[in-house]
Amino acid sequence: MHKKLFIPGPVEVRQEVLSQMALPLIGHRGKDASQLQENIINNFKKIFYTNEQILLSTSSGSGLMEGAIRSCTLKKAAVFSIGAFGDRWYEMAISNNIVADKFEKQWGEAFTKEEIERVLETGEYDLITITHNETSTGVMNPIEEIAEVIGKYPDIIFCVDAVSSAVGSKIEVDKLGIDILITSSQKCIGLPPGMSVCTFSTKAIKRAEKVTYRGKYFDLLSLYKYIKDKNYQYPSTPSISHMYALDYQLNYIVNEEGIENRFGRHKVMAKITEEWADKYFELFADKKYLSNTVTTIKNVRNIDFSYLNNELGKRGFQISNGYGILKDKTFRIAHMADCTIESLNDLLENINDILKLN
Amino acid sequence: MHKKLFIPGPVEVRQEVLSQMALPLIGHRGKDASQLQENIINNFKKIFYTNEQILLSTSSGSGLMEGAIRSCTLKKAAVFSIGAFGDRWYEMAISNNIVADKFEKQWGEAFTKEEIERVLETGEYDLITITHNETSTGVMNPIEEIAEVIGKYPDIIFCVDAVSSAVGSKIEVDKLGIDILITSSQKCIGLPPGMSVCTFSTKAIKRAEKVTYRGKYFDLLSLYKYIKDKNYQYPSTPSISHMYALDYQLNYIVNEEGIENRFGRHKVMAKITEEWADKYFELFADKKYLSNTVTTIKNVRNIDFSYLNNELGKRGFQISNGYGILKDKTFRIAHMADCTIESLNDLLENINDILKLN
Repeated sequence: MHKKLFIPGPVEVRQEVLSQMALPLIGHRGKDASQLQENIINNFKKIFYTNEQILLSTSSGSGLMEGAIRSCTLKKAAVFSIGAFGDRWYEMAISNNIVADKFEKQWGEAFTKEEIERVLETGEYDLITITHNETSTGVMNPIEEIAEVIGKYPDIIFCVDAVSSAVGSKIEVDKLGIDILITSSQKCIGLPPGMSVCTFSTKAIKRAEKVTYRGKYFDLLSLYKYIKDKNYQYPSTPSISHMYALDYQLNYIVNEEGIENRFGRHKVMAKITEEWADKYFELFADKKYLSNTVTTIKNVRNIDFSYLNNELGKRGFQISNGYGILKDKTFRIAHMADCTIESLNDLLENINDILKLN
Repeated sequence: MHKKLFIPGPVEVRQEVLSQMALPLIGHRGKDASQLQENIINNFKKIFYTNEQILLSTSSGSGLMEGAIRSCTLKKAAVFSIGAFGDRWYEMAISNNIVADKFEKQWGEAFTKEEIERVLETGEYDLITITHNETSTGVMNPIEEIAEVIGKYPDIIFCVDAVSSAVGSKIEVDKLGIDILITSSQKCIGLPPGMSVCTFSTKAIKRAEKVTYRGKYFDLLSLYKYIKDKNYQYPSTPSISHMYALDYQLNYIVNEEGIENRFGRHKVMAKITEEWADKYFELFADKKYLSNTVTTIKNVRNIDFSYLNNELGKRGFQISNGYGILKDKTFRIAHMADCTIESLNDLLENINDILKLN
């Protein structure tokens, strides 16, 4: 039996979107392929509230995260980590011989703008990376407050990992001065995994032009030039199947569901899950910074998580255990992409029934 | 109207394979995902005649080419180029600050083992890259002869770009001493683009362990460790849809069509196309080194290629123009993956009819 996915990616994908993945292929150097990429880019500009460039990558979001820090760090990067995926960005820097410092918070906490400012004041850094929504802890950093501070430092390239929040959360890229915002297909977009996307500001383009060893596949400048100079082409052969599905889904999000409605639905789903978690368990994350898309729940009842997920499996649902060091202490329910309030309530009722809560 | 693709990738994909791309998703950290990757790897071992490791990558083949030269060059790489894709490997080295020399042949020619040996004799190099099948020219390097020479130099990591030949051509990886053989989904495998695969020898693993800055997404050692130490897992979220289709297709190739039959069919298709090209046009490549999978044809009749491909389009076919510097002088017919002899003959008859040949 298929299990409906309430894990923080891959998410449950609508049947109409899945069907697009099975369409016959076209050549990737023709006008049809250019048109396809252009349509996708234009819709992303609306969703991200940006007039800057949009880049697609046939890879997971990790690839573009690596590409961002590598393409745009000239001096030194400041990596702000609040969990496993923040740590990953630091590993990417180190493995690419990029000078970087990591600043950490305890898992479950967010960064304040004061903490960010203290680091930037040193004048040592020319790029920062920050996780918008930390999938391991269910914490959402206060990106708007943080953006205010970063705005004071015009030399900083501002990179945001919004892999598990963008397209489910309103992030006004140009207004916030974000230079590179990254997300991937298998989270709030509601597609199968295999493709990722980022914004790329004029400021970031100018910076990348000064960086010598940007590599090739994840060289953001090369992706940009194929769009700009070669009429919306891609440097190698892209996943055309994902592009079909992405085009279909973005049209749905922009023209049928509506962007603001989508963000609103994510807020409602987060609230339902938080209230449930608060009633029967405890929330792991600082309540001021709860994620819109994934709720991390402290297992204060000491339930047997494997038993719960197995029983849920028999009923056609799947949730997620804790991540990394939180594996046995927490579990996670994702409420993102095209998940409906009805199906979320259905899941929670089934958990109550299995655990005999109420 | 859909056009049957006779271009050198993306290829025409069978409907049964396309349908696999539309299956509902599973979590990428579960046992089912491990089992899926393990099955795929075991079938690739048969197709590549190897007992060494197999790595999958959610990217085009270019990604793994970059990963190979970056993960395994300690001293200096020798890049043997016979066309556009050989040149690309050199660009990858340079953009990653890897010391490399490029050795070139005129487009249309292959390397001899003597030429390779003269370079290796210098003792300057610890890795070589060579294109098995150059998609731009339709030349297939004599990989078995070249392998004999390389076998004399035990410090050389032997990397082969077989993107447009492997799975359509017999390449006995272990017997030839190939350390890293790379191919991607949208060529002879017969899948949509978006996934690539390589072999990874014990010798290459040992070399990679000595290289410091291998990057992250295309660090072959990291891909290897997730398979070896984490029970056939993948470092980030892979394209599960491609893995479904790949598993299905490799089972078909190994258990239904038969590996040797597949290689045999590719030989027959190449012969048909070459005889046709020889009769009505001229072959671009040196006749001793003609490709099994793509035929590059000199436009000695000065036909209007755009007209031909447009007319073919109306009849449901698509072939390819020349690549790069050969754009206007040649055109290309690919005969790979699940293309049948019948449909190839159908294509050639339609070309004859449009151009009033015979």
